[in-house]
Amino acid sequence: MRASKYLVPTEKENPADAVVASHRLMIRAGLIRKSGSGFYFYLPLGLRVLKKIENIVREEMDSTGALEFQLPILTPSEFWETSGRWNVMGAEMFRVKDRHDQWYALGPTHEESFSYLVKPLLKSYKDLPINVYQIHTKFRDEIRPRFGVIRSREFIMKDAYSFHLDEASLDATYQEMRSAYRKIFQRCGLKTIPVQADSGSMGGSASEEFMVVSSIGEETLLLCGNCGYNSNSEKTPFVLDPSYSAQGPKEKKEVPTPNKKSIQEVSELLGVRPQDTIKAVAVKNEKESLIVFLRGDLELNEHKLKSYLKWTDLEMIPEPELKSKGLVPGFIGPSDVNSSFKLLLDSSIKKEEAYVVGAGKEDAHIQGYVPGSEIKMEYMVADVALAREGDPCPTCGTSLKAEKGIEVGHIFKLGDKYTKAFQIQVLDQQGKAKILTMGCYGIGVNRTMATVIEQCNDDKGIYWPISIAPFEISLVTLAKGAEQEAKVLEFYENLKNEGFEVFWDERDLGPGFKFKDSELVGFPIRITVGKKFFESGEISIYDRKHDKDESFTFSGFDDLHTRVENLRQELYQELL
Amino acid sequence: MRASKYLVPTEKENPADAVVASHRLMIRAGLIRKSGSGFYFYLPLGLRVLKKIENIVREEMDSTGALEFQLPILTPSEFWETSGRWNVMGAEMFRVKDRHDQWYALGPTHEESFSYLVKPLLKSYKDLPINVYQIHTKFRDEIRPRFGVIRSREFIMKDAYSFHLDEASLDATYQEMRSAYRKIFQRCGLKTIPVQADSGSMGGSASEEFMVVSSIGEETLLLCGNCGYNSNSEKTPFVLDPSYSAQGPKEKKEVPTPNKKSIQEVSELLGVRPQDTIKAVAVKNEKESLIVFLRGDLELNEHKLKSYLKWTDLEMIPEPELKSKGLVPGFIGPSDVNSSFKLLLDSSIKKEEAYVVGAGKEDAHIQGYVPGSEIKMEYMVADVALAREGDPCPTCGTSLKAEKGIEVGHIFKLGDKYTKAFQIQVLDQQGKAKILTMGCYGIGVNRTMATVIEQCNDDKGIYWPISIAPFEISLVTLAKGAEQEAKVLEFYENLKNEGFEVFWDERDLGPGFKFKDSELVGFPIRITVGKKFFESGEISIYDRKHDKDESFTFSGFDDLHTRVENLRQELYQELL
Repeated sequence: MRASKYLVPTEKENPADAVVASHRLMIRAGLIRKSGSGFYFYLPLGLRVLKKIENIVREEMDSTGALEFQLPILTPSEFWETSGRWNVMGAEMFRVKDRHDQWYALGPTHEESFSYLVKPLLKSYKDLPINVYQIHTKFRDEIRPRFGVIRSREFIMKDAYSFHLDEASLDATYQEMRSAYRKIFQRCGLKTIPVQADSGSMGGSASEEFMVVSSIGEETLLLCGNCGYNSNSEKTPFVLDPSYSAQGPKEKKEVPTPNKKSIQEVSELLGVRPQDTIKAVAVKNEKESLIVFLRGDLELNEHKLKSYLKWTDLEMIPEPELKSKGLVPGFIGPSDVNSSFKLLLDSSIKKEEAYVVGAGKEDAHIQGYVPGSEIKMEYMVADVALAREGDPCPTCGTSLKAEKGIEVGHIFKLGDKYTKAFQIQVLDQQGKAKILTMGCYGIGVNRTMATVIEQCNDDKGIYWPISIAPFEISLVTLAKGAEQEAKVLEFYENLKNEGFEVFWDERDLGPGFKFKDSELVGFPIRITVGKKFFESGEISIYDRKHDKDESFTFSGFDDLHTRVENLRQELYQELL
Repeated sequence: MRASKYLVPTEKENPADAVVASHRLMIRAGLIRKSGSGFYFYLPLGLRVLKKIENIVREEMDSTGALEFQLPILTPSEFWETSGRWNVMGAEMFRVKDRHDQWYALGPTHEESFSYLVKPLLKSYKDLPINVYQIHTKFRDEIRPRFGVIRSREFIMKDAYSFHLDEASLDATYQEMRSAYRKIFQRCGLKTIPVQADSGSMGGSASEEFMVVSSIGEETLLLCGNCGYNSNSEKTPFVLDPSYSAQGPKEKKEVPTPNKKSIQEVSELLGVRPQDTIKAVAVKNEKESLIVFLRGDLELNEHKLKSYLKWTDLEMIPEPELKSKGLVPGFIGPSDVNSSFKLLLDSSIKKEEAYVVGAGKEDAHIQGYVPGSEIKMEYMVADVALAREGDPCPTCGTSLKAEKGIEVGHIFKLGDKYTKAFQIQVLDQQGKAKILTMGCYGIGVNRTMATVIEQCNDDKGIYWPISIAPFEISLVTLAKGAEQEAKVLEFYENLKNEGFEVFWDERDLGPGFKFKDSELVGFPIRITVGKKFFESGEISIYDRKHDKDESFTFSGFDDLHTRVENLRQELYQELL
């Protein structure tokens, strides 16, 4: 490709609204432009990267035997009503009405559509297992689109759905997808960590997210350096340090705590540690209200709570509502909750130990409170606390380490939520109709692209993994006059004919400008044929990633091919 | 690919709602399934065809130097307000509101988006001409989706837009697209005719549609067998037969025509030909009302009328409204129209000849009416009649022939409608800012696929042009026992390793069933290795399109490769 016939709209200045490196560099390198909040145009250089990632995803999916489909983006509301998600998906799902007043969703995910599609196609156990996928545009009306294409409102996803007669078959495909995902991201030059994750509104029994550690990540990961246990903090069980015991006063009595509402204030006033206290968090959904008691130093993990209660939504109860129900915010204790609330004790609380708790009235707490013997109401016990860095690993007990992560893929065991709703059943080996079990597997294509840039950038710009670079090689030439121009054309034609993927910068611009562009856009290999070549026969090959420039006397195209191919192979080797 | 690991959901029965061959066969061959009215799922076999067509389009577009982009499907209402089309596009455009009450269109076409995008990228005449395109999903809320994917509501289009400093440059790219389109369709095995077309709501000065002659076509084409003039009847100028003259009575007088409202009835009663009469058609838009007078035997061409008047919409005026404005429907004549109407005389009417016209009152007509001397109001004269088969060619006068056609592509010279609205200007060679001129070029990818099937089917099913077949070759094997199975596997592995695109039907089904499937799906080449091979070494190669079966004794893979490759080359040769 000749640069003069292409579009390379590089920019010197950082765009004002870009706060992360990938967003800045995608604009500056001329890969994308903004259409509106959360919407991006892909320019030719950017689209090539996107398509290369799509192809890697496709190759690895196909090699597992998964079958590619393409489904309509507009999915009728009936599909969503069948699964019960039309009302659950909320404002994040774009909805549109046609001229006959029929409602459709702009598909944010396609469990329903694929279920509707495969139901009549699957007749017997011989048709199973089957793993179907598409690589297509998805829509989510994010509250806060941000970080460029990392969190946008229209994006490309690879979404796959597998159907199985039993759990063992689902697990086999799940593991196959897990290893395909590792390969896909590895081929894209990304180091991913699969972490255990919350299944959210998808339903299902198990799920893992593929995370890339990054300071701009919106997820918190808790990783064990000893046994390899990794999870999203949304999901991590909180494990009590075995050495922990409550150390507050044992003698039970009411103590005045005027205006001391926070755990911090109460602890300081009474000279105890936050972990010697119990705090209350009041939450509700449309049907019920609940008060959760946690050890004072811990935070509520709403994901674990929702999952335990099987709630699809959850909100904090505002203070006025608490007061109207007879509670005193800031001083709520486990013994003064009335029957308009359910009660849940986080499993971090040791029921036989003595804590400081609210007294159930203004400006007072109780010390020496032993939950096991004092709570009169029925209560649930569950692990709903947010685990933190330093807490013990749920598997081996080693201190967990925290990292920020970007989610680039997600795999789920969905169970029978959708197969039941759509009544997807086949005859098993015994001729008996059996409802199937299902898995689903997603990869964010655009987000993968941006995440690679987050990992592969320096002060000059992007350095692409060679597998997904817009072009593998840039050829920068500087020629004056017809004779020199003919010579550099020969270089281009020769490399192109040899099968190299070459972007030839033959624009009528200065060498500094061209070098800067090639480093900003991030072509992995740069061949320079310039002034020195015409003076002394010297040309150079630059390895962008390792910032290594090798100059040598041109001794023929065979030698050049060998040098370029060797570097190319080395760069591909690094992705294995 | 092994059939047993694939999805080949062929059907014996025709789907009840499918009235055309392509729709029936796409369902029966397992290429698509219906999601809802105008929405289709693409199954693996169908998607492969679609992707091959996309690739042919991409290759030919790229070889002209056009640059591929990908734009958001959701396009903000502001873009459409800038061009003035938000209110013009009507109910055919799906519209959706986001959580901030911002409106978007589900892009039916992307003049606005590309204009917005390229405006800041084009700075000087050196950046021109530029031709940008995408291959992406489009949406149109058709009143009557029909014929399967031929007229659907969600479909894939290749849409290209070119920008130019002047008309000559636009014309050069337009001609380049014209020849690229011929190549694209030819490579897909389609014979297309470019016909002059109406530009419709796109605006612009010239356009041609690429039509495939087909009895199910929704367009009427008028073709000249002598000079090669071809046009959509929406656009064809009506040329008066030079031998024509009005032959009704010359004497002017009012004649009673009780209850004779139609031209047919009046002509019969008065003993004149329909072409000796003048009829009235009353139309309006939001602002004006108009009465058009045409020769009695002709029909109004609304497209030509709208284009002449520069109206974006047009409807017939209902009888009660005509009456309330003092007219007598069925008896309207050119002299009794009042000033609440404008008047237009179709150019088919010879102003100095005598016609039969309405008398402007119940149950009477006037004979011997000479329009030129009688009409008192100001009137326009324009060609707004629908040309018909047998009318003279506008170029050479030969009788036109009518055909039905399916539109698979459309190229437009848009002029400055969008570049003016978006103020897209660059500095020309003299350093003066100049508004650009623009072209646009579309291909319906799914419709191309269905149209190929309309052309390439017989009572057995589809016979794909080899260039876009889901697989070039099907290998049907019949093997019993481990030894035979090992042998047929050898055939598959050998052909695959040789680089042939093979679909191996190794399913545990009878030979008749497998042959029927391969003929229904339409693989161009079928190799059969069955019973006869194990008896006497005989295998066969079947050419689906020409229904030619060649049996021979297998004498080694080299011989087989040669035979298959020869047939393959022959089939590709037919597409040149």
